[in-house]
Amino acid sequence: MKIIVDAMGGDHAPLEIVKGALRAKKELGVELLLVGREEAIREILTQENAEMTGIEIVDAREVISMEDDPSTATRRKKDSSMAVALNLLRDERGDAVVSAGSTGALLTGATLTVKRIKGIRRAALAPVLPAGEHGVMLIDCGANVECTAEYLLQFGYMGSFYAKKLMGCENPRVGLLNVGTEDTKGGELQHQTFALLKQAHEEGRINFIGNVEGTGVFNGSADVIVTDGFTGNVLLKGTEGVIKYMMKALKGVFYSSTKNKLAALVLKKDLAAMKKSMDVNEVGGTALVGISKPVIKAHGSSNEASFFAAIRQAVAFVQSGIIDEIKENIDYMKLKTE
Amino acid sequence: MKIIVDAMGGDHAPLEIVKGALRAKKELGVELLLVGREEAIREILTQENAEMTGIEIVDAREVISMEDDPSTATRRKKDSSMAVALNLLRDERGDAVVSAGSTGALLTGATLTVKRIKGIRRAALAPVLPAGEHGVMLIDCGANVECTAEYLLQFGYMGSFYAKKLMGCENPRVGLLNVGTEDTKGGELQHQTFALLKQAHEEGRINFIGNVEGTGVFNGSADVIVTDGFTGNVLLKGTEGVIKYMMKALKGVFYSSTKNKLAALVLKKDLAAMKKSMDVNEVGGTALVGISKPVIKAHGSSNEASFFAAIRQAVAFVQSGIIDEIKENIDYMKLKTE
Repeated sequence: MKIIVDAMGGDHAPLEIVKGALRAKKELGVELLLVGREEAIREILTQENAEMTGIEIVDAREVISMEDDPSTATRRKKDSSMAVALNLLRDERGDAVVSAGSTGALLTGATLTVKRIKGIRRAALAPVLPAGEHGVMLIDCGANVECTAEYLLQFGYMGSFYAKKLMGCENPRVGLLNVGTEDTKGGELQHQTFALLKQAHEEGRINFIGNVEGTGVFNGSADVIVTDGFTGNVLLKGTEGVIKYMMKALKGVFYSSTKNKLAALVLKKDLAAMKKSMDVNEVGGTALVGISKPVIKAHGSSNEASFFAAIRQAVAFVQSGIIDEIKENIDYMKLKTE
Repeated sequence: MKIIVDAMGGDHAPLEIVKGALRAKKELGVELLLVGREEAIREILTQENAEMTGIEIVDAREVISMEDDPSTATRRKKDSSMAVALNLLRDERGDAVVSAGSTGALLTGATLTVKRIKGIRRAALAPVLPAGEHGVMLIDCGANVECTAEYLLQFGYMGSFYAKKLMGCENPRVGLLNVGTEDTKGGELQHQTFALLKQAHEEGRINFIGNVEGTGVFNGSADVIVTDGFTGNVLLKGTEGVIKYMMKALKGVFYSSTKNKLAALVLKKDLAAMKKSMDVNEVGGTALVGISKPVIKAHGSSNEASFFAAIRQAVAFVQSGIIDEIKENIDYMKLKTE
């Protein structure tokens, strides 16, 4: 398997990206197509004493930054590492793209260059949150600010396939994010989506468990939570914010007295493990679900370990055959009336 | 000041409700109008050796439960403690209603019986979250699943008045909840609302600081965060869920070994204080902002202490003059085109 790496994307590119990729080559046995400024990449490879068999470099002179408009970035910077990486994927020069660059630019670029799976209305950004036995997929988390019920139906299907093939859920419980658990809750979008998901459940295609509240995201009541990208994004970032806030408050308790400092020292290792287990980055990257070939977004702050985890996820994604499963089921995923 | 108490609302009614009310009478010097089953209330008053001066009981035979449809509950159960309490407020028999009963029923009942302030399109459920120096008001959190930009503009004004008068913010920073901080983020609702809030800022009426992400709720970047009730509700419940999840994970760490148990024992008191400081219930109740007279929702699980806190908040609300301030500014809060 060959992974196309956007070597210039992310806060710690190219050093940590290339190091993470080298680790993936060693531990997972993948080949690498490293895309970016050749001299910078070569310098790191030399410094790391990299064995060059199975490594190709494709030179790309530009870098997409957070200041670039995501909706036009890959079109305007045609020689950027991200645009070139996506072109290579389209041309079947590799099996997946992994990038820690701008989420919006990657999403737009993937949609324009690699294209969506035929029949899929919108690709979704679908992170797996570290909760419950297998994790919880929140789909969509920001790719689509305004959604139709058909988009959400497709998110439900794609999330269900993902949870089955990549999260180890046998019969994934798909819930619709809402303001209450009663069937009639929510606005027009929720009412329409509820009906579509219920029908898919009755046809035996997905396991729709009904509406799920915000509290349900972290209590393990569902494996896949379907929502529009606006709500999902706010919820995801809100929970990130609370976790940070609580960690800070905990730190305050630990440093408030000498006896607390000593007690905290005893707990230090186990608390660090707990913190790590709640870190979204540890899960790996976030799949752009609905694109016709595997594209994985690694966290912008990726270091070697998290970029390695993102490549590991890309490998699992390629092996899962999820894209084929979506293609095979696409007729059920479209509204009958259209 | 006379507080009208729905003595039968909430999981621990009437005992904890009446006890909380008696504490408020003693500590805050308020008079009480206790509404509910007279014999049950009298029994508690006798048991608590209550001094009857300043206490009136109004008998109401029915109780609104969580099973009643919120949108029709106070109309269908006309002799319920909640419906009777709201009627008493409308008839100026007291200064405020405090209820731990169904949020939806209270909101609908207050809107139908007590009515909104003239010109206010929708009342909002606006809890103050325990973050930042003064707390952060999230408005709306579930009263209005579908909103227009005009509703959100009014929430911005009302939240700003509330933060100034009740949270101790001199020049409250009003933010619009969005998927990014850039001005152009979000969908149609956010674009329209951004323009209205910006105009209000330019006219010097509110201090609009622009878009705020989900991470901004708990990092103290705004005092008032404006959003539609769907997003606000999901965010509020999501953060509640994460806090619970983290507390459980912490507990797991504490019980994982004997040495951890001993260390946790040292920290116990300070951790309990931290947990309490993050508890939404400790702030008191949640004001139904936009109703023409003060109505405060206490948490459904209210015990004596939290119901007391909700009455304390009702007293502050009455004294603040916020309803008059909204009335005086109502012309600026309506869209010019209508």
